[in-house]
Amino acid sequence: VARIRLTIAYDGTRFSGWQSQPDRNAVQDHLEAAVSAVTGGDRLPVHGSGRTDAGVHALAQVAHFDAPAGSSMAPDDWLRALNSHLPPRLRVMGAEAVSDSFHARFSAEAKTYRYRIYHGEVLPPHEFGRAWHLRGTLDATLLAGAVALLRGRHDFRAFAANRKDASDQADATRTLSDVTVVTDGPVVSLVFRGDGFLYKMVRMLTGGAVRVAQGREPPGWLRGFLENPRGPKCPYCAPADGLYLVSVEYGSGPGPGEPASQP
Amino acid sequence: VARIRLTIAYDGTRFSGWQSQPDRNAVQDHLEAAVSAVTGGDRLPVHGSGRTDAGVHALAQVAHFDAPAGSSMAPDDWLRALNSHLPPRLRVMGAEAVSDSFHARFSAEAKTYRYRIYHGEVLPPHEFGRAWHLRGTLDATLLAGAVALLRGRHDFRAFAANRKDASDQADATRTLSDVTVVTDGPVVSLVFRGDGFLYKMVRMLTGGAVRVAQGREPPGWLRGFLENPRGPKCPYCAPADGLYLVSVEYGSGPGPGEPASQP
Repeated sequence: VARIRLTIAYDGTRFSGWQSQPDRNAVQDHLEAAVSAVTGGDRLPVHGSGRTDAGVHALAQVAHFDAPAGSSMAPDDWLRALNSHLPPRLRVMGAEAVSDSFHARFSAEAKTYRYRIYHGEVLPPHEFGRAWHLRGTLDATLLAGAVALLRGRHDFRAFAANRKDASDQADATRTLSDVTVVTDGPVVSLVFRGDGFLYKMVRMLTGGAVRVAQGREPPGWLRGFLENPRGPKCPYCAPADGLYLVSVEYGSGPGPGEPASQP
Repeated sequence: VARIRLTIAYDGTRFSGWQSQPDRNAVQDHLEAAVSAVTGGDRLPVHGSGRTDAGVHALAQVAHFDAPAGSSMAPDDWLRALNSHLPPRLRVMGAEAVSDSFHARFSAEAKTYRYRIYHGEVLPPHEFGRAWHLRGTLDATLLAGAVALLRGRHDFRAFAANRKDASDQADATRTLSDVTVVTDGPVVSLVFRGDGFLYKMVRMLTGGAVRVAQGREPPGWLRGFLENPRGPKCPYCAPADGLYLVSVEYGSGPGPGEPASQP
């Protein structure tokens, strides 16, 4: 098969999340419709590295699909052709041929998310839908201390929202290899790199860390959720607006530097 | 009177420009409706430093209005109250009391506009409506050379679009005290500071300079329009998407550092 790997960016405020929805306004719906428009054939599945919820942004989501047998379109032609059929708030930023051992979801080894907070009295209009607006106390030292507790290998079950399809949470142990706070003027970003993330995990980690930074919960508060994962869940979830899927990493499998030989 | 000076930011894609329109979706309409909602009284005029067209953004537009006689609201209360009645893509970023000798339009001494170009193969979705997307050649040296010609005092008539209300173009001489090119990765910004701007002047200057940077017109091409202002107009106008009103400067009159004494 001619498997094509796509790097995709989207403004989450315009779509019903990643996964195909009845309203046909999910990112996956738009991509599958665009592939179908380009091939003139039946709808083919486009597989993503994972779901993002409505309102969540992506700077470099990764997906793949298999071009129809006999297709000889070059990846750059796919990029241009797909973009001509996609809305402007959803763009294919890169396309390359990969071997059929590559799978956007199962080959992913790490992901990085950024959660953007705008800390100031008035949210500038260009930040609306693109950051969580917080006023008042947000102590940088308390915030850094709270996120530092999260690094490493933990059962993050208490930071996962329930969903009907909970099968993938049977094992809720994940490794956060890096969690950092980056401050740029009024914009405070929490950057999370890990081998996997549970449903709404970044937003619940952020929601909990912010409560600590606001002085509304004690400094060590998040530790309790990690030490007692089957106890109460963290009751705070940051809004979707501030969340960005920044990158997906693929290691041993065919990646950006290793295009598959032409079929 | 209690004159209040406002600093205003807006996402131009959401509004029908600055000036009041029949659709009531101009920035001025929203501001006048918000003042009226706060006072519970008749609609009062809100005067801006100048118009911006539909699609043009503002980071710090300046306006003023006169609070009703007897009003004792502090500027910070005005800021909060107005924002509670405004759409989120239009924000009052600052408010202060000024003397009634201050006028947002007539006291303005200089304005700065930024024109943002995104130079790259694919426009990232978060840049849609916020930059002019250009592919292909855009020579930095040619661009810098083209804008350098524009500095100084000139009759800019050939860079002004006609409009019905052309009375303010009887004198088309303006001074551009500074024109610079700022490059930040794929984002190329043209920054214009001047004592005044004609209708669509920044967009026509940018449109012309880009044609030179693309190699489609000779390096000295813009000079002809300045030397022969009553000849043909510059035929290129950059789209509204990339234009930002960055700041308005007030010199001798009451400004940010010089609040008027309380009435």
